[in-house]
Amino acid sequence: MRRRNLAQAAAALARKLEELARVSDERGATTRTFMSPAMRRANALVGRWMRSAGLSVAEDGAGNLIGRMEGSAAGSRTLLMGSHLDTVRDAGRFDGALGVLLPIAALEIVRSRGVVLPFAVEVLGFSEEEGVRFSSAYLGSKAFAGRLRKSDLRLRDAQGVSVGELLSRHKGGRLHPAGPAHSRGELLGYLEVHIEQGPVLEAGRLAAGVVPAIAGQTRARVAFMGRAGHAGTTPMDFRRDALAGAAEFILVVEALAKARPPLVATVGRITSHPGAANVIAGEAGLSLDLRHPVDSRRLSAFGSLLRAGRAIARRRGLGFAAEVTQDNGAVSCSRELTALLEGSVRACQGRSLRVPSGAGHDAVILSALTPVAMLFVRCRKGLSHHPDEFVRTSDIRVALEVVADFLARLASRHPG
Amino acid sequence: MRRRNLAQAAAALARKLEELARVSDERGATTRTFMSPAMRRANALVGRWMRSAGLSVAEDGAGNLIGRMEGSAAGSRTLLMGSHLDTVRDAGRFDGALGVLLPIAALEIVRSRGVVLPFAVEVLGFSEEEGVRFSSAYLGSKAFAGRLRKSDLRLRDAQGVSVGELLSRHKGGRLHPAGPAHSRGELLGYLEVHIEQGPVLEAGRLAAGVVPAIAGQTRARVAFMGRAGHAGTTPMDFRRDALAGAAEFILVVEALAKARPPLVATVGRITSHPGAANVIAGEAGLSLDLRHPVDSRRLSAFGSLLRAGRAIARRRGLGFAAEVTQDNGAVSCSRELTALLEGSVRACQGRSLRVPSGAGHDAVILSALTPVAMLFVRCRKGLSHHPDEFVRTSDIRVALEVVADFLARLASRHPG
Repeated sequence: MRRRNLAQAAAALARKLEELARVSDERGATTRTFMSPAMRRANALVGRWMRSAGLSVAEDGAGNLIGRMEGSAAGSRTLLMGSHLDTVRDAGRFDGALGVLLPIAALEIVRSRGVVLPFAVEVLGFSEEEGVRFSSAYLGSKAFAGRLRKSDLRLRDAQGVSVGELLSRHKGGRLHPAGPAHSRGELLGYLEVHIEQGPVLEAGRLAAGVVPAIAGQTRARVAFMGRAGHAGTTPMDFRRDALAGAAEFILVVEALAKARPPLVATVGRITSHPGAANVIAGEAGLSLDLRHPVDSRRLSAFGSLLRAGRAIARRRGLGFAAEVTQDNGAVSCSRELTALLEGSVRACQGRSLRVPSGAGHDAVILSALTPVAMLFVRCRKGLSHHPDEFVRTSDIRVALEVVADFLARLASRHPG
Repeated sequence: MRRRNLAQAAAALARKLEELARVSDERGATTRTFMSPAMRRANALVGRWMRSAGLSVAEDGAGNLIGRMEGSAAGSRTLLMGSHLDTVRDAGRFDGALGVLLPIAALEIVRSRGVVLPFAVEVLGFSEEEGVRFSSAYLGSKAFAGRLRKSDLRLRDAQGVSVGELLSRHKGGRLHPAGPAHSRGELLGYLEVHIEQGPVLEAGRLAAGVVPAIAGQTRARVAFMGRAGHAGTTPMDFRRDALAGAAEFILVVEALAKARPPLVATVGRITSHPGAANVIAGEAGLSLDLRHPVDSRRLSAFGSLLRAGRAIARRRGLGFAAEVTQDNGAVSCSRELTALLEGSVRACQGRSLRVPSGAGHDAVILSALTPVAMLFVRCRKGLSHHPDEFVRTSDIRVALEVVADFLARLASRHPG
């Protein structure tokens, strides 16, 4: 009976995800960007679902959707759960949306089991996480956490409209910048459910896993400078081939990351100049992206790579330059909440797996306000940010069960 | 006295090269393309210099400038000397032009020494070698050698004008396509003087060297196909990184060429797709340029590289594709003429050096008509196709002396 109820709830949730995916700024694709007409319609639709689950619904000054259920204990603290409702262009239907709709369904299951939660719960649908419209991510969760800066308000989209202008049109400019929605003491924590966007759970044949930490990230632009020359008339020993130096560096990046799991290091972009088939490259530029859940390990790996790059350049008579364009620290998830969540995962699917998150999530921003925990749900081939993004309904069922179990465990820990 | 005469002749030649460089289709840069107004002015200017050196001057239907000096022996054969008068965009002043003006000066020196050549000499200023206007090289020497094809006549420039239309406007359409200017039996051979466009003579501290062969060339497009993925969420062991495969290939290309001199192999162009810093490359494309004076060695090296590429792809779980876009055989220079030229080089600068040509020259086309020989002249830093292209006047003097000596030696071999 309980199992059938869960399966039905998962199927209903899958249908809602399909319906929400049709709410889009683009015909024939799922695209919802910060404060767009589709985002207003998405908030209205999800708001209806929240209300029918018994939540009271509000929208804050930054377009974040907030569904609240009070706790049974007077003056109880609040558990936050949620993710974002905006999407990349031509998105799938799970990234973000799953983490907003699943908690609503989990609360319904908890209620159907006659469990009354002593603490309040807020289900959050953040208005901006993907950074599409303003090339800057987390605007929604930053506003919620009181971390929106004046510099964020000055960001402009392709039409020249600033974040600040959008916000003042939205709710009469009340948020310029405002403080957090909650004080630290009011909160129990933040739980985010999200598709893994990677292949680890699929390889481990598990529907769900817990996230011990969200990796820190170093992004850099790296360049090797050599000497352009005629491909036919310059003997090999006379060359200072910048692209050959870059190739050697790419293999060092790969080998170093393989030797130091869970480090991941990627060269995704490369250019050679002048870039002609019959000219030896005088310059080669590449992107470097380095992520590790432990900051010291990431920084030490970056240092090793810089030394290796310089050594390659020296040996080849090349110049070498590296410029750090991004440096974000890792975020550790709460030990207590993660242990609790891990217990629920084990109870529901037999065993658990710890999968550090290599991608950023709203939990990164929320961690400044309250302890965070994350549940990853398996997605097909690790594919995300693509219309073929897919989560099996049976995996949604497992995740639903995990979150319902987690709420029950948390209730017994925090009876009010 | 003789030495001073040579130095004066070299200085005069250097001044003429400067004057010719000012004849351009572009203000402030040297650019002369096939059949352009600047090419007509260049032919007129060089034609005057030819006449004042005692040559009779004509222009053929393809805009090739021909200065002829008859031999003293009746019915004697003809030695061809020359190079091209067109240039790349924003060119230097030596590439091509040196090989047209230097033979004129050499003939004057020979005459000033009282030597009467038994054979006729034609100094050729080819109208097209660089392939700028029609993206197809050697139009001038092809026409002279009777190797212009109907497909060449159909080539169109950026304005939609075809080679055939240009030629029929030029001389009333007499050349559609015509046979060679000379039969094989009428010719003694073809000598081309050209800047090296490479660093070998400079490194060997020699003003001039002989070219034993012009390298054959294989050009190919190579691609590695992997699987795009999230740079943060895909552990290293789950990756099929196309760019890492391409990097490994680039190093194999370099190592193989280093191990098999005088093979040169170059990857000058590279692309990764989707080409974002935070996405593992799903595809990487690169250019491969392979040159060797011996065709069998070039083809065997290409085969080795294809096998290596496939092996890299197999080991990494990648796809591999290679498409040959160009395949030109090597051209061997005449043993007899080259030995004679080498004797002259040794006589003039103490020792000689054999420098295979990695770049193509008009001699490639002329070799189908008559035995060819080439003299390379040192250029600063091997630089060409650039306004900074530079040849020392003292090196021009050595080359002048070599060519004058070569003419005298040839005269004693072929007394008529």
